[in-house]
Order: sequence, then structure tokens, then C-alpha cells
Amino acid sequence: MQDFTPVNPEYKEMVRKQLAGNHFMNFIGFEIKDIKPGYVSGELELKEQHLQQMGYLHGGVTATVADIVCGFSIYTLLGKNQGVVTVDLNVAYLNPGIGDKLVANSTVLKAGNRIFFSEGEVWVESKNKRILVAKVSATMAVLNFTEESNPVK
Amino acid sequence: MQDFTPVNPEYKEMVRKQLAGNHFMNFIGFEIKDIKPGYVSGELELKEQHLQQMGYLHGGVTATVADIVCGFSIYTLLGKNQGVVTVDLNVAYLNPGIGDKLVANSTVLKAGNRIFFSEGEVWVESKNKRILVAKVSATMAVLNFTEESNPVK
Amino acid sequence: MQDFTPVNPEYKEMVRKQLAGNHFMNFIGFEIKDIKPGYVSGELELKEQHLQQMGYLHGGVTATVADIVCGFSIYTLLGKNQGVVTVDLNVAYLNPGIGDKLVANSTVLKAGNRIFFSEGEVWVESKNKRILVAKVSATMAVLNFTEESNPVK
Amino acid sequence: MQDFTPVNPEYKEMVRKQLAGNHFMNFIGFEIKDIKPGYVSGELELKEQHLQQMGYLHGGVTATVADIVCGFSIYTLLGKNQGVVTVDLNVAYLNPGIGDKLVANSTVLKAGNRIFFSEGEVWVESKNKRILVAKVSATMAVLNFTEESNPVK
Repeated sequence: MQDFTPVNPEYKEMVRKQLAGNHFMNFIGFEIKDIKPGYVSGELELKEQHLQQMGYLHGGVTATVADIVCGFSIYTLLGKNQGVVTVDLNVAYLNPGIGDKLVANSTVLKAGNRIFFSEGEVWVESKNKRILVAKVSATMAVLNFTEESNPVK
Repeated sequence: MQDFTPVNPEYKEMVRKQLAGNHFMNFIGFEIKDIKPGYVSGELELKEQHLQQMGYLHGGVTATVADIVCGFSIYTLLGKNQGVVTVDLNVAYLNPGIGDKLVANSTVLKAGNRIFFSEGEVWVESKNKRILVAKVSATMAVLNFTEESNPVK
Repeated sequence: MQDFTPVNPEYKEMVRKQLAGNHFMNFIGFEIKDIKPGYVSGELELKEQHLQQMGYLHGGVTATVADIVCGFSIYTLLGKNQGVVTVDLNVAYLNPGIGDKLVANSTVLKAGNRIFFSEGEVWVESKNKRILVAKVSATMAVLNFTEESNPVK
Repeated sequence: MQDFTPVNPEYKEMVRKQLAGNHFMNFIGFEIKDIKPGYVSGELELKEQHLQQMGYLHGGVTATVADIVCGFSIYTLLGKNQGVVTVDLNVAYLNPGIGDKLVANSTVLKAGNRIFFSEGEVWVESKNKRILVAKVSATMAVLNFTEESNPVK
């Protein structure tokens, strides 16, 4: 992982403000736990509502968490009135997910002016085991707001 | 779209049984409305819980719905004791989603013995407008169960 | 397919100028045959040099041709001193390619200010058969040059 | 990177036999230099024929080399009469490639019975610099041959 210097020294606070308003993330129960320049990780206690009909973790939960960590690792490197939207998300589902807790992390690969690349991992943990459920790559486009036009105050 | 002949003449019933137990789909509120050989479509009334912090449709909702329709278009062509798991999901986010209702569909591209390919579209509709939010491609692997081992009875 | 109006009325000439200097395309022998707003198609006579060790079309040829058509369908919609570079390329290999001639086409899905999306198909033809070898999606970023800085005069 | 034990103790020889007949790889000039269980790396001296019209490395060369290394890292773990074909290839183009030599490597992420996942990196080197041009993920499907049906003797 590269050494990144955040543009905004208060990047942690900025990321937390974004997280607070992320409705779908809050709806499924995922929480970001660790925030560093160019990196975030988080977790989700798995319940029945996160599964598909065969009892495995739903691929949509995996993709959602992937999109979230890949976006927020990038947010750590943005300026105060910037945002990102996902351009491309690729999820490789390596193993079916069965377990108690989902853990996910993401690292920025390239911080550009207009486009960022990040990658991520989604794991499922139970007492004695840790399974790599998916590897993910994401491309995101930077949005530049003014103080007024920024939808996240 | 190709003409597909379902292996199981009762494919609609089989798909409905799978859908009933798809917990995460039910949790977010997406419903499959139309089921044909090699094709499904469905919809979701958009609420605040489906959005991200800037007020757009959350990319995780788009990816989840994409995974669901791409999987269930394939289910229409499976045998009674078969299932599929997602191998790869690629989502291209063409436009930000703002609107009242999400509509998604998927078509099977290739029905193999072990691997199926499908593609899908996710739209957001409001009164006077329809926006193509994402195009998706999915690769899925076939699981072969026996009557006993089939997790979906 | 949408109706696109080219920014540059001499888009065909502009695309042909770009094609002339595309060394790797010329090296493998692929030729663009049809150019319309938001669309190109082309072909390649298959020779042993395009195959892998099992006698199938090499996946790299498929990906190369995919990248070319997905890029040039976008070039038809660019201004005189613009260019694009590939951001993401996703290739789904539906069927092994065996045949005499490769045929590929691409259509623009979204023409943005900074980012374009296009999709494509790669077919292999022989006397009596036509096989869909791959479906492709591409994301490309726009480069803005001046008359002087434009590397393609 | 995981520790992999090759099924075939003569995996290096087996991989070299496959490489010898890989026509398109030989046509473009890429050479595999290092072969370990679950890993390969190789290089390509860059010439004008590998470039596009703006003077950058052609995205098709990047994708071709990506497909090759991601396939051959998997070959190191196959049995004597097995092969793989690419199912999905995703290339994220991080930086434009300008330099003297392309260097690429790939690592196996998951060795399944029917499906393998691998990932790779493509770099471009010049005297004083090394640029990460692309990160790649690939899904491949296993082919099982008999001694007689194996196309690579």
C-alpha cells in the first residue's frame, strides 16, 4: 500500500459526516471501524436478512459492502467539498459466505484528479475460521462542489 | 434475445419458491414481476433507506438488484435440483439514480453446463422520465443437488 | 441504440486518422469497416498467429479487438482535439472461438463530459456458423488537447 | 500469497510446453521468465508495434499480457491433462504506459475444482521509473482432457 497524504487534515471527521448520512449502509447495518489515509475497514454482524435462499451470504450484501469500503477509502483523500460516485464495480466471488461476521476493507490504488481506483476484500468470520468471500475493484469519478452546492453539509 | 426452452416446465413455480426464501431481496423490498424463459424483470419502490448521503440511489442497491435479476433469469433455465452462485458481477454505473421507482431486468446470454452468463439493466423511473442507471454482466456457476441435499425445498 | 449527433461533422475522417496511427491494431491486422455516430464495426482474418496453444482464438486478441471497437465507437462522438484512454475493460468470454474471421462491433451507451461508456460484441464466423465469442463493456476517460498538444495531427 | 502445492511435480515443464504453442503470445513477443506454484511473471521489450496512435502502450497489449499471466499462474496448479479457458477478464487501467519494457505478474487467488481465480499486475519500466499500468482480475474454467483428447501433447 502506498503512503497517502490527505488533502484535508480533518479527513476522519469528513468521512464520518458522509457515513452518518449513508442511509442504505445504515439500513443493512454495516459500520466503518478504521479510517486511515487511503484505507478503511468495517464490519457487519450477519443476520438472516443478509442471506439468500440457500443460506449463504447474499451476493448483494457483498457487493454493497464492497462499494461502500471502496468509496470511503477514496473519501479519506478528497477535499472538503468533493465527493465521488461509482463508475465501475467488479466483484469476484471467490467463496460462498457462511459465518457470523462480515469484515471488509479497501485500499486506494490510484488517486487521480478526476478518477480514483480502489480495491477491496470481503471476508466472513466465524469462531475458528476466516473465509475470503470476494475481491473487488472499483473506479470512481470525482464530483467538485462549492460550499453551497455540496449536498453533504 | 435467444429463444430458450426451460428444462423444467414448472420453472415459474420453481423460481417463485427460490424468491420466497431470498431474505436480503425481501429485506430491501425488491419484487420480481415478470418471469419468462431466460428472462426476469422486477421493481422496487424507492425510499430514503435506499439512498446514499448525496440523495442518489445507493450503488449497493443497484448492484444487489443486478445480482438478483441476473441470477433469477438463469434460474428459469435450471433443473429442479440445481442452483447457481455468482462468480463475477460487473456493474457499469451510467447515470446517478434519482426517482420514485427502480425497474430492473435481465436476459440470459449463454446457458452452459457449468457456467451461465447473463446481463441486466437497472432503470430509475419518475413521472416523466426514465434513466438508465446501470448495465450489468454476471457469470454464475451451476450447483447440482440431489432431492435431499437441495437447500431449497 | 440511441441516436447520436457527432460534435465533429467530419467524424469519419477524424476516426480514420486515429486508426491510421494505431500501431498494435495494424500489427494484428484488424480493420474498422463501418463507422456511424456512436458505432463502429470491423473484422480480422484469423491466422495461426491469433490462436493460443489449444487452437482457439487467443483471449488477448478478443480483448484487443474489444478495446479497439469500444474506443473507436466513442471517437465518432468526440471533438477535433479530444482523445480517450481506457479506464476499465470487462470481457465475458461466452464461447471458445474457432473459425475463419473475427467480426466485432461496439455501440456507445453513454456520452458524458469526462467519461464515456460503450459496449461491444466479438463474433467468430466460418462458412455456416457465427459464434458469439465475447461481450464487452468499457469505460473511457476523455482527454482534452489543444491544436498544438494533440498527439494525433 | 498463499502456499500452493502443484498437483503435477513437473509443472514447470508442463507450463513451458503450453507456452511454446501459444502463438499470439509469441507473435507479440511476451516471454514468461519466472514460474512458481500459483505464480508467473514475464516481460516484453516495447516496440512501436505495441503502441496506439497517441504513443502510449496499447490497451490491447496490456489486456493480452494480463490474460496470459493470469492463465499461466493457474496452469502451474493443473494436472497433466487439464487446461483452462478464460471466463472473465477485468482490466483497470491505472496509468498510461510509456517506457521501454513491460513487466507483468500474476498470482492465483483461488484454486477450485471447476473455476480458478487469479489476479495480476502490468508495469512499464524505463531507466529510472516503474509505472503500474494496470491491475487485472481473471476467472478461468478448467477443461478436463484424456491423454488422447488433450490438444497440447
